[in-house]
Amino acid sequence: MNKNKKGFVLWFTGLSGAGKSTIADGVFEVLKTNGIKIERLDGDVVRENLTKSLGFTKEDRDENIRRIGFVANLLSRNEVGVIASFISPYQKQREELQRNVNNYIEIYVNASLEVCEARDPKGLYKKARKGEIKNFTGISDPYDEPQNPALELRTDKATPEECIAEVINFISKKIYS
Amino acid sequence: MNKNKKGFVLWFTGLSGAGKSTIADGVFEVLKTNGIKIERLDGDVVRENLTKSLGFTKEDRDENIRRIGFVANLLSRNEVGVIASFISPYQKQREELQRNVNNYIEIYVNASLEVCEARDPKGLYKKARKGEIKNFTGISDPYDEPQNPALELRTDKATPEECIAEVINFISKKIYS
Repeated sequence: MNKNKKGFVLWFTGLSGAGKSTIADGVFEVLKTNGIKIERLDGDVVRENLTKSLGFTKEDRDENIRRIGFVANLLSRNEVGVIASFISPYQKQREELQRNVNNYIEIYVNASLEVCEARDPKGLYKKARKGEIKNFTGISDPYDEPQNPALELRTDKATPEECIAEVINFISKKIYS
Repeated sequence: MNKNKKGFVLWFTGLSGAGKSTIADGVFEVLKTNGIKIERLDGDVVRENLTKSLGFTKEDRDENIRRIGFVANLLSRNEVGVIASFISPYQKQREELQRNVNNYIEIYVNASLEVCEARDPKGLYKKARKGEIKNFTGISDPYDEPQNPALELRTDKATPEECIAEVINFISKKIYS
């Protein structure tokens, strides 16, 4: 992989349980191992450091994504790669990212709601169905399917390793060729 | 100036009216003009993009500074220079920055309260004295003087241009030599 100096933001969007974090972590490790300047922004990092006190109303979710986009853009325009994984359910949010974030690359991590709910790795769908979690994407809050993602991964048909390889292959061509 | 790749955070602390923004803006321009990768974080940028909804209680001020520190560190550890200017009145906040932020360089922009209050460029001291602004640093909230800043600028004795030159001279030696 030819390391040039272009910054970018790989933005993984999709339902809870679709496999965003697993794939994003894998891509991050490959790039890091290849000596590429790269930062990982995920829910835990961001809630702790950027968006404490924001909740799950539409307004707070918008502000949450906007704030992450601001930081991602600061890094990207300074030639740092960013791996971001957030449900980011609204088309409008993602259009705003597309406009405002340097070299924004949208990756749709796609598995059907049924598959995600069957996986339910953190038991969140179960809680959402019982009404214990409100505004839960896919159950009680909408997920707008990406209209024109740079890449779509079908995690119900391919393994995480295959998906990671697909992303690496994609950005090798797009960014590092 | 020899442009090497070291990231850093120049953190300007001091009372309102001490001249932080003027000097930080000037330093930013000089570095930018020299082709150095540099970002400017100031109150306006940060309030709009990172800390909307935070107020001026001690708790909110701490969270404010912590959040800026997080972003500054992301940039600095990726070889980007950061010019940050915030009152950042508490010693504990600044000690936390010193611990957590890559290549944190503290610059104390020092003018006495009397001088700052006489300048009062935004009329804020007047409002604070009338009680129209609460928790105002220097009037109704403390400013802990930096114990061991990397550099101290006496803006009651030197012009902004002299102070800017002093900072550039300092970092030329410290970062770019």
